[in-house]
Amino acid sequence: MDYGATTPVDPRVLKAMKPYFLSKYGNSMSLHSPGREAREALENSREIVASLMNAENKELIFTGSATESNNLALKGIAFANKKKGKHIIISSIEHHCVLNSAEWLKKRGFEVTYLPVDEYGLIDLKELENSIRKDTILVSIIHGNNEMGTIQDIEEIGKICHDKGVYFHTDAAQSFGKIPIDVNRMNIDLMTVNAHKMYGPKGVGALFVSNGTEIEPILHGGGHEFGLRSSTTNVPGIVGFAKAVEIQKKEMNSDAKKQIRFGDRMIKEISEIPDSRLNGHPTKRLPNNVNFSFSYIEGESLIMQLDMKGIAASTGSACSTDDLEPSHVLLAMGLKHEEAHGSLRLTLGKYNTKEDVDYVLVVLPKVVKKLREISPFKGKWS
Amino acid sequence: MDYGATTPVDPRVLKAMKPYFLSKYGNSMSLHSPGREAREALENSREIVASLMNAENKELIFTGSATESNNLALKGIAFANKKKGKHIIISSIEHHCVLNSAEWLKKRGFEVTYLPVDEYGLIDLKELENSIRKDTILVSIIHGNNEMGTIQDIEEIGKICHDKGVYFHTDAAQSFGKIPIDVNRMNIDLMTVNAHKMYGPKGVGALFVSNGTEIEPILHGGGHEFGLRSSTTNVPGIVGFAKAVEIQKKEMNSDAKKQIRFGDRMIKEISEIPDSRLNGHPTKRLPNNVNFSFSYIEGESLIMQLDMKGIAASTGSACSTDDLEPSHVLLAMGLKHEEAHGSLRLTLGKYNTKEDVDYVLVVLPKVVKKLREISPFKGKWS
Repeated sequence: MDYGATTPVDPRVLKAMKPYFLSKYGNSMSLHSPGREAREALENSREIVASLMNAENKELIFTGSATESNNLALKGIAFANKKKGKHIIISSIEHHCVLNSAEWLKKRGFEVTYLPVDEYGLIDLKELENSIRKDTILVSIIHGNNEMGTIQDIEEIGKICHDKGVYFHTDAAQSFGKIPIDVNRMNIDLMTVNAHKMYGPKGVGALFVSNGTEIEPILHGGGHEFGLRSSTTNVPGIVGFAKAVEIQKKEMNSDAKKQIRFGDRMIKEISEIPDSRLNGHPTKRLPNNVNFSFSYIEGESLIMQLDMKGIAASTGSACSTDDLEPSHVLLAMGLKHEEAHGSLRLTLGKYNTKEDVDYVLVVLPKVVKKLREISPFKGKWS
Repeated sequence: MDYGATTPVDPRVLKAMKPYFLSKYGNSMSLHSPGREAREALENSREIVASLMNAENKELIFTGSATESNNLALKGIAFANKKKGKHIIISSIEHHCVLNSAEWLKKRGFEVTYLPVDEYGLIDLKELENSIRKDTILVSIIHGNNEMGTIQDIEEIGKICHDKGVYFHTDAAQSFGKIPIDVNRMNIDLMTVNAHKMYGPKGVGALFVSNGTEIEPILHGGGHEFGLRSSTTNVPGIVGFAKAVEIQKKEMNSDAKKQIRFGDRMIKEISEIPDSRLNGHPTKRLPNNVNFSFSYIEGESLIMQLDMKGIAASTGSACSTDDLEPSHVLLAMGLKHEEAHGSLRLTLGKYNTKEDVDYVLVVLPKVVKKLREISPFKGKWS
């Protein structure tokens, strides 16, 4: 129940990667036959990954992670366009890598506007439009939120940005491979994706950069990936990413249908637990995301108890576990500190069965009840 | 004959990685059991990799590549220490990722001194000492050069830096796992290493950062790797790196002995080809590196001809193939443009046999002879 944190590699993906570890292991920059073989695998993979977002091959830059792609998008656009202006707009519910890249840019003279969200986690399109200034160079809004799954109206956001002549970046790490994305129809200039949330390997991401976009690299070196991302190309990883994309192209719709069926049932039944509250939008949400707050309970205790029963889940996102602060995403949606602390994220995946769902729906109400009986907060909060 | 560009993954390494792709696939930041299992694998791997350089666990930061590690070392030190000074010293034979990171810093107000090298590719220790100023914050000198294999006297360089109170970084991407390295004995503050030059996977590197070193991250996000490198941890890749280190710990010495025996024979016999010249130091060189210049011949043609005979080799390093400029390393050693263009790098590895060496020594003289017969340069250069 924690596919949002990461997924296993599909055995078909590992099978596709294997020869590139052992025999077709050339460096994609080498002039000889093994080098050319690696280069071919790289370019075939680029075409496959680009095709799932309707991008051209040369618009796709492979990176080492979604974090790196988001850093590249924000810093790369900022440095390349600072003559035009130094104003950037992001939402208040971005992933930490977008938030912290923006913070870093602030220290270097850039100005950042944080768009608030409503109780469902949606930004206000009118407010976005009013926030764009003459010196705005970039708007970065997450597609499907990693914590509570709300999906923004990317197409309209992109249209507003384009009407105002501003670059639009979206972090699609959680949505790519789960719901259809068309960068052209959706007016996207830059888009972050990665492999390990969609049954591909960890350590591989990509950034879509539409033709003509002015951007600078953040990793300097041999000039790989059209000069935008130096490092020996991780050919086995990229081949694995492409295979994962190839599989999701075929299975995305049926996966989503199954997950929505499971998820809807979970949302319905978990809502019946007293003092529970669904976080995120009731319908505009990632097909695999179920996020609830339970009053009087700490998220960490809930995770621990579920873990003891064999259920892997998370509170907030996996990327900020060390952080004892309550989720900035849930706070931005208007939850109180204690509600944000008591949140539970269940994220479904390809290998979940009806039996998994049945089991969670039996165990969870008991765990919530048990934790409330020993909760020191109950009296205070009621 | 191109193990310097990259190596195959040792089948034992892939076997160690496999469970982390398929079943032990947790996110190392997750609170539940699969997360803890991933975290344990990460920390065990950290201990293994750190042990081959005599570092403490908490001094090792996993990254996505040697390029990223070098970028992190230069930029991270520069940003964190700019109040102390803005002067950086590097050699003129660094890898492009060090050179280009330094160039990038120059555009941001830093000053860079490039130390020249002698005909063997060695820097002058006296000149280094004289170049260190009050505002010098970092010296970065490559350990074993990626093109012609010359090994610098790192221990003495480190001593000079420490006597002057300046951080010392070395790029050991080509030497780690091939020759012994002790970061304490060798006075190293920061060291770049990676997996794919030593039979580990591509897409995994590390940076040694000695305790107390002031450094800033270059990838911002969830705060992984002690806050120094955000991104979901590539656990399978890191486990593979550790396995490769474990293997090289045992096999490094015997590998090196074999490669020196093969290499010495190759150097002796190739030297007998008329108008050939060994590049790099005759003895202070990586055990697997053989680098020659052949007058009147272009390196690219040589590579193509050898490739047709089934021999993979390189001219310059693999990382700058797109670059039509002659090798900056060979130029820095005093070679003429045409000599630098005509260089051949043969880099040996674990799986090379005596038969491979025999074959190269039969084919190479013939190919050189053939290319000279059709060379348009012969008359001009003689």
